[in-house]
Amino acid sequence: MEQQETTAAHIIALECAALEGWNRGNPSAYLDLYAPEITYFDPFQEKRFDGIETMQVFYESLRGQISVEKYEMIDPTVQLHDMTAVLTYNLNSWAGGDLFRWNCTEVFRQQPDGSWKIIHNHWSFIKPLG
Amino acid sequence: MEQQETTAAHIIALECAALEGWNRGNPSAYLDLYAPEITYFDPFQEKRFDGIETMQVFYESLRGQISVEKYEMIDPTVQLHDMTAVLTYNLNSWAGGDLFRWNCTEVFRQQPDGSWKIIHNHWSFIKPLG
Repeated sequence: MEQQETTAAHIIALECAALEGWNRGNPSAYLDLYAPEITYFDPFQEKRFDGIETMQVFYESLRGQISVEKYEMIDPTVQLHDMTAVLTYNLNSWAGGDLFRWNCTEVFRQQPDGSWKIIHNHWSFIKPLG
Repeated sequence: MEQQETTAAHIIALECAALEGWNRGNPSAYLDLYAPEITYFDPFQEKRFDGIETMQVFYESLRGQISVEKYEMIDPTVQLHDMTAVLTYNLNSWAGGDLFRWNCTEVFRQQPDGSWKIIHNHWSFIKPLG
């Protein structure tokens, strides 16, 4: 149990570090966390993105474009099973005076070297239709 | 490799059966597939739902309320690692003359008896803000 809590805290710390980079316009920490097989949904795309090369092109196009002043990660939960960890949380992000409210899913997979990489990421807005 | 393809096809068949029940207003197949630990996002909720009891109350409140005439599952992909399978796809659903376009994530976990259960489900709209 103690080991599980340590792993869950590690997963959440990885996500917070990536998110804090993102909030300053730097996608590198997310790109470093994504596994080659990454699949990805967000509310601005027509279709799922597949693979790290697609994500590199997409995220590099946004480098320096994002500035989130403050965020609140709400009730993060890690469902840990062996080498898979499903992190889910709600997120409040404040940018340019606006509040953006998100649902977030990150599926992490432990690699042979012991590190954890994200194999799936799904971002969506909370109640986008009001 | 052959076993992996068989498992992926099985996961997709489980999802299609649950979805077809749902489309006829019957949530039972999804409820049967959800593990006790299920976590859940959809675009109509303020916050993540946690646990099968919450999902039972929610889905039973929708029983008989849904009628989807036709659906198209677009490019389903299964990322299979040992006892975890991440199914992702885009979905077109036609209901009452309207087309609803979805992103879907289903994280399956194989149980000790060999069956597969969903431990996380995330539904969102494609480009809800246009």
